[in-house]
Amino acid sequence: MARRQGGKPTIGPAARRLLEGRRLLIATNRGPVTFGVDRAGELRPRRGSGGLVTALSHVGRHVPLTWLAAPMSEGDRRAAGDPALIDGATRDEELRLRFAQVERPAYEAAYNVIANPMLWFLQHQMYELPYRPMLDAGALRAWDTGYVPVNRAFAEALLAEAGRDPAPRIMLHDYHLYLAAQTIRERRPQAVLSHFTHIPWPPSSLWQPMRPAIRSEIVAGLAANDVVAFQTERYAHNYLRSVESFLPDARVDYRSRRVTLADGHAALVRHYPISIDVEATRAVARSARARRLAEQMAASTRERVIVRVDRLEPSKNILRGFAAFETLLQRNPRLRGRVTFLAFLVPSRTMLREYGDYGRRVQAEVDRINARYGRAGYRHVQLFYENDYAQALAGLSIADVVLVNPLIDGMNLVAKEAAVVAERDAAIVLSETAGAYDQMADGVLAVAPADVVGTADALAEALAMPRAERTERIARLRAGVEREDITWWLRRQLNDLAAVATTRGR
Amino acid sequence: MARRQGGKPTIGPAARRLLEGRRLLIATNRGPVTFGVDRAGELRPRRGSGGLVTALSHVGRHVPLTWLAAPMSEGDRRAAGDPALIDGATRDEELRLRFAQVERPAYEAAYNVIANPMLWFLQHQMYELPYRPMLDAGALRAWDTGYVPVNRAFAEALLAEAGRDPAPRIMLHDYHLYLAAQTIRERRPQAVLSHFTHIPWPPSSLWQPMRPAIRSEIVAGLAANDVVAFQTERYAHNYLRSVESFLPDARVDYRSRRVTLADGHAALVRHYPISIDVEATRAVARSARARRLAEQMAASTRERVIVRVDRLEPSKNILRGFAAFETLLQRNPRLRGRVTFLAFLVPSRTMLREYGDYGRRVQAEVDRINARYGRAGYRHVQLFYENDYAQALAGLSIADVVLVNPLIDGMNLVAKEAAVVAERDAAIVLSETAGAYDQMADGVLAVAPADVVGTADALAEALAMPRAERTERIARLRAGVEREDITWWLRRQLNDLAAVATTRGR
Repeated sequence: MARRQGGKPTIGPAARRLLEGRRLLIATNRGPVTFGVDRAGELRPRRGSGGLVTALSHVGRHVPLTWLAAPMSEGDRRAAGDPALIDGATRDEELRLRFAQVERPAYEAAYNVIANPMLWFLQHQMYELPYRPMLDAGALRAWDTGYVPVNRAFAEALLAEAGRDPAPRIMLHDYHLYLAAQTIRERRPQAVLSHFTHIPWPPSSLWQPMRPAIRSEIVAGLAANDVVAFQTERYAHNYLRSVESFLPDARVDYRSRRVTLADGHAALVRHYPISIDVEATRAVARSARARRLAEQMAASTRERVIVRVDRLEPSKNILRGFAAFETLLQRNPRLRGRVTFLAFLVPSRTMLREYGDYGRRVQAEVDRINARYGRAGYRHVQLFYENDYAQALAGLSIADVVLVNPLIDGMNLVAKEAAVVAERDAAIVLSETAGAYDQMADGVLAVAPADVVGTADALAEALAMPRAERTERIARLRAGVEREDITWWLRRQLNDLAAVATTRGR
Repeated sequence: MARRQGGKPTIGPAARRLLEGRRLLIATNRGPVTFGVDRAGELRPRRGSGGLVTALSHVGRHVPLTWLAAPMSEGDRRAAGDPALIDGATRDEELRLRFAQVERPAYEAAYNVIANPMLWFLQHQMYELPYRPMLDAGALRAWDTGYVPVNRAFAEALLAEAGRDPAPRIMLHDYHLYLAAQTIRERRPQAVLSHFTHIPWPPSSLWQPMRPAIRSEIVAGLAANDVVAFQTERYAHNYLRSVESFLPDARVDYRSRRVTLADGHAALVRHYPISIDVEATRAVARSARARRLAEQMAASTRERVIVRVDRLEPSKNILRGFAAFETLLQRNPRLRGRVTFLAFLVPSRTMLREYGDYGRRVQAEVDRINARYGRAGYRHVQLFYENDYAQALAGLSIADVVLVNPLIDGMNLVAKEAAVVAERDAAIVLSETAGAYDQMADGVLAVAPADVVGTADALAEALAMPRAERTERIARLRAGVEREDITWWLRRQLNDLAAVATTRGR
């Protein structure tokens, strides 16, 4: 039944079944286009990058799509009040872009006090709990005057876009928007709503130190959706446990993975592992520029190449990755001078102190290892600190080993990108704590993120792996990523939402 | 049936049913007596303190008891080889004391590298995970040449004490001895073994960063017991989940709370909340010295008194407690100069950098608050930094409010001590994340540990609580502690072990 493109089912039929002629409404913190202001004071649209933007933009090819985002820049805030201007500037996009009406101080409190430090650190289990988080008067103010009104503003904007439709179809995304569904549900009880959490959902004991009102508002806010979606089965289970812990009036059915609130509303709790657009990824890796960069890098490296690609972010466990590389060199002296570690680290949240501290320690570690094991100007570790997607894919394409050892990760798309662009049939070393591990366990070498010696052993095993085994493993991984790609991720969600809409006769 | 002492059942009958004429063997890291060396080079026994020692020593009144401990001091190591000397020096104790044969370097690696920093921090969720733990070559060496052989030495010593008994009755204690049961089980398959973990058992996602071999050895080591015991239902559940995560060959039955290993051995997973010896606690609180100290302190305080008693330890969340007190003073200016916070902080693990850092920050916070809100030499916070149990109980006896806000705590006995020694019917503010909360929820004011504002609000509510309500609440709490006291804790374990022994015909 499904229309096919290159032999694969598309999302079109599922989307049309869900929408029945409506527009699909999608809300994310960061939108597909942001507006800068040029020297003449004119608004200039800039297209965003990133997997989610690419993936969701595709939806617009198949069905009418309205995308609501937070105004991130001064240009966005100016554009927010002028839909015609936005429509003019985005006429090449297959979607209608809108901005929520959010004042800058409220947005900054939501983003820089609650979402990015607090929720991100909590959900990635990165807090040093004896000291933080500190739910003091300032944090509470940021919640009450930032996170809550920003979520309400998203809900209002979505309701406005829905017009008089009693049952709009709305997909909310990520930890910036935990509360939006509740406002929408109150005003349009028949709305068909989903929320997808892209980051991990930790066990309830990690939520437990949080202020009770906040943790239960978050958990209840999500339960106002029809489908509460996570990356992995474990995160979905953890969410069910947190409903049980923090919403005493709710009923939790672990078998059918369903939450029923005191008012009778029922939410399905599901997991949909996100993936990549395989063709788009390959197209970048095969571009002339990427090929040229790959050749240049190959010329600068020694016999064997280890590659990592990450945002420079403490959850990515970059320090222990270098510690493992050093252990590898210590235990295998014959590798010294014969293996190169290319680390592509993308600047991220450089305003946060924790990120700055972490980045400085990463740089110091690289310098120390290069000084200690360097021979005649040869550096074992080459650090690329910039946001250059083509260059990173070029690096992955020449890797013998790809190291993906996050402390914890909602999914991790680098492992999936590596599986489809590796030209040397790279062996992939992957943390068990990355969401991607659930799908890739049968092809990767597994490591536990704190296990530096185990990671060094995995790198040694990967470097020593016979080419035939590498070829066989990566073929299996590649087939998995091709099968369970970004279209698969989206199609299953649209199907489940369509079933919800049908069952309830909305 | 049970013999009663002051109207309460004793442990005698359960112990005799379990032992059938044997000696009970108990193993803990720290024993009831440790040996110093005096100036003349003679060994001098010193009685240990602490709830566990007091509790387990009672067992010796009812049944023959052999207690195995690690040699902690030079004197202990000298005494270890000379049972006659130990017996002579401990002839007033109602038990036989023995030391495991452990070399000092092995013990220090087990204690100072694995148990106290690593397992303690991990199980209390206190690691700043981007940086630690670091399972590097040094940590692995400490495991292989410290923790593993120390556990084996405990097992060997227990087997030696058991003589030819094919089914010795052995109770192992805490995170220092996770592996001992396995060696005993291999050599005496019919042994009746229990292990009690006094500290929290976190969700498996907290164990997941650990080296796979280590985390599965720990989980499997515990499962070699007949009864795997924890403080709370949540910790027992978390243990079952970690068996499921890390021992793929084991079967887990969540309903009967039973683990079955691949070799057919089955372990029951139970929870027994530990408690205090109510009479012994009251005796200290009513001693002449404690009464005198209580009078002196009462004279030095203002109208209202808040008290906390804790080891100076990051898991106790002392910093946020003072932050909450400051918030209280800020929000309720009329309390300034009218409320005194007595903090009894017992020095702990002062050799660990994290503890030193934490202690300095606590002191600085106290100084800052006293300087900021002090009037005419009056200090709102009085810090008592010493190990003086009678003084701490004296403090609790004059409290209007007792603050017990740990980040996380296996049980927390201060809350229970407060319930039985408070002379002013103190209101108790207690973290939901303390094990004690499960038993005390209906009498305390609950707080989430990171919620500084919520803790300040709870302190304000406690200070404003009508005396009648305080009286009613603490009467309920006191009755609970009297009912579920240390004898109850021990008796239920002995009963369950006796049932295991009977069922298996051992």
